[in-house]
Amino acid sequence: MTTRQTCLDRDVADPLGGVRGRFSLPEGLIYLDGNSLGALTHAAAARVDEATGRQWGRDLISSWNSHGWIGLPQQVGRKIARLIGAEADEVIAADSVSVNLFKLAAAAVRAQGPERRAVIIERGDFPTDLYILQGLAEAMPEIDLRVVDPGRFEAALDDRTAVVLLSHVHYRSGVVRDMAAQSAAVRAAGALNLWDLSHSAGVLDVHLNRDGADLAAGCGYKYLNGGPGAPAYLFVARRHQTILRNPLSGWMGHARPFDFIDDYEPAAGVDRWLCGTPPILSLTALDAALDAFDGVDMAQARAKAGALGDLFIERVEARCAAQGLVLVGARDAAARGGQVSFAHPDGWAVMQNLIARGVIGDFRRPDVIRFGFAPLYVRHVDVWDAVEILGEILDSESWRDARFQTVSAVT
Amino acid sequence: MTTRQTCLDRDVADPLGGVRGRFSLPEGLIYLDGNSLGALTHAAAARVDEATGRQWGRDLISSWNSHGWIGLPQQVGRKIARLIGAEADEVIAADSVSVNLFKLAAAAVRAQGPERRAVIIERGDFPTDLYILQGLAEAMPEIDLRVVDPGRFEAALDDRTAVVLLSHVHYRSGVVRDMAAQSAAVRAAGALNLWDLSHSAGVLDVHLNRDGADLAAGCGYKYLNGGPGAPAYLFVARRHQTILRNPLSGWMGHARPFDFIDDYEPAAGVDRWLCGTPPILSLTALDAALDAFDGVDMAQARAKAGALGDLFIERVEARCAAQGLVLVGARDAAARGGQVSFAHPDGWAVMQNLIARGVIGDFRRPDVIRFGFAPLYVRHVDVWDAVEILGEILDSESWRDARFQTVSAVT
Repeated sequence: MTTRQTCLDRDVADPLGGVRGRFSLPEGLIYLDGNSLGALTHAAAARVDEATGRQWGRDLISSWNSHGWIGLPQQVGRKIARLIGAEADEVIAADSVSVNLFKLAAAAVRAQGPERRAVIIERGDFPTDLYILQGLAEAMPEIDLRVVDPGRFEAALDDRTAVVLLSHVHYRSGVVRDMAAQSAAVRAAGALNLWDLSHSAGVLDVHLNRDGADLAAGCGYKYLNGGPGAPAYLFVARRHQTILRNPLSGWMGHARPFDFIDDYEPAAGVDRWLCGTPPILSLTALDAALDAFDGVDMAQARAKAGALGDLFIERVEARCAAQGLVLVGARDAAARGGQVSFAHPDGWAVMQNLIARGVIGDFRRPDVIRFGFAPLYVRHVDVWDAVEILGEILDSESWRDARFQTVSAVT
Repeated sequence: MTTRQTCLDRDVADPLGGVRGRFSLPEGLIYLDGNSLGALTHAAAARVDEATGRQWGRDLISSWNSHGWIGLPQQVGRKIARLIGAEADEVIAADSVSVNLFKLAAAAVRAQGPERRAVIIERGDFPTDLYILQGLAEAMPEIDLRVVDPGRFEAALDDRTAVVLLSHVHYRSGVVRDMAAQSAAVRAAGALNLWDLSHSAGVLDVHLNRDGADLAAGCGYKYLNGGPGAPAYLFVARRHQTILRNPLSGWMGHARPFDFIDDYEPAAGVDRWLCGTPPILSLTALDAALDAFDGVDMAQARAKAGALGDLFIERVEARCAAQGLVLVGARDAAARGGQVSFAHPDGWAVMQNLIARGVIGDFRRPDVIRFGFAPLYVRHVDVWDAVEILGEILDSESWRDARFQTVSAVT
């Protein structure tokens, strides 16, 4: 039977246990929201300070070269590539997930030619993925946008399908898709697959090339710990790099941006997916944060996230039985990302109480409380303690009456 | 006759003289490149430190509300609005200039209907403005992109013109357009005007509404001092806000982003021009930097920038006569932005020598050396001293032989 001491023992034996020391975590807080905003690393704090005072403040414009600002999008891309099973020259940091999905989906439709104009996405996927495709379909009326029921994209594939946008891990349920099988299904129909890795990169062992991914984009501020609103990244498999053209053809994606010529000529390789000048302070934070993954085996990271989630489910169902909590999404760790969600009719109030007691998760309407188990800094004992606090709250008389300020809902 | 003492006296009398104290400027450097990268303010340094350690590090996800991250795009927009003659609800910070020009130009074309599909820009304008329209015309093949000769956009206006993109101040020559007259010409043809304010906001007294602007975008990292690659902003005149739709319809531009519903519904007003999650560290720096404009009358700022430019031209032509420097762009301060450019056959080597002597300007191929006179922190005596150093370099025997590392060309 699991006890608190078992958890402490597991933390001692944890091969990733030492990585937690790279993070600057507030004393006494149990942070289970790394799937919304990853924690600050010591390296990121130091690098932002350096980039602000010494680089911007003292060295000013020369820092673009002398401190390597100009190469940061590629440098960050190389670091992320290792985490997602891509080659170093297939990934680049740029813009936001939303903007990157627009670029990639638009490029894919254009490359597929006039006979393939259907774009497929499943209802209930992360909203911005749906919204971006809706905006794209308005801007390019030749697009036939097919929003299909959850789990039903394969039935919608046909010889008019240009591209299918799939979330690797579902933002609400945490369910993970079978990337190899679903990539193959899309490609067998002659379409391109486009993966949103926002909830999988940095917590699962993603294998884009092994699993036949064509295109992908993901978020820098969740499990990659890049800081609030950190720049996103995108992946274009080498076989597509010369064909696909970025519709957001800004100067940073030009073959020779500092020649200042009038005609756009896309850079070779993944560089063409840059658009405007990147936000260097935020990009520096992401670059430094990624060093927390140095030496981390992503298969180990996934195994640990799975074990933490298993422990959480086991403990909630033991400690909080008959309290109205219903598991949402997969019970099996192999089918889950780094998060576990429960539905509860008073989910919002439950989460407010948890936050007031120093256990940070988040709430998704209408009734889902969501907990992320970032394997680089969450311990087994944190999971134990979090469930104990949850149990105490639900056992108490008063929690439904409590008044708390609204917690952010930014994922 | 102007002397160094005259310059010192003018600095003492300068109504903006005290504003320089808000900046963290390196000792001994004469920084005439605020038109490429504005200098760091003490407030920005402090706010970035706060946003990193206390907000991200300690308060984590709750900072979206408790520290107002979620409202930063609007807050920054309000601060910029005052500087560019717009209403507070007409401006918002978002993405990059390139991305914002794409959004606005695409929206304008769609709103104008099928009879108006021509988009006009002048050759030689800032490259990313040209590139973005080229990418847009590829993505929306119904667009008729007309790249006309410099100064010739009016001749190209007709009843098929949808939108005209104009740089308020030319990035290379520093020449300022007559916004009122040119806006009126565009509107008289039934088209929408779209202004790039990157080289005018923060140094000229821009009057978007007085001068009949429809749409605008601009850069946060030049005269607004927001830091390297700071987020950009855009302006949509109120009369267009309900009609124009953002093709980059990301979740942050949704009417209720945290309802997580499947269908995009644009936010009211200027908020719909947001797309993805903004880079908060960079946006915070911009927000803080804008406070350097507190109490600054932009007409006074423009007058000072003009006076500094006049002084520079006068001194170069006196001190460096017959040294091969030829003024590029307007001699009259009323027709200039905040910068002055000279052509010189060895312009690159001249600039490298200046930088080695602590005078920072920049170089634009093939032969232009460019100096910006940011009125919030450049002094008259800086101009005097810069020209003395330039004169000493050109008088010397050795400057053409010197070897220096490449300076950045990022504007």
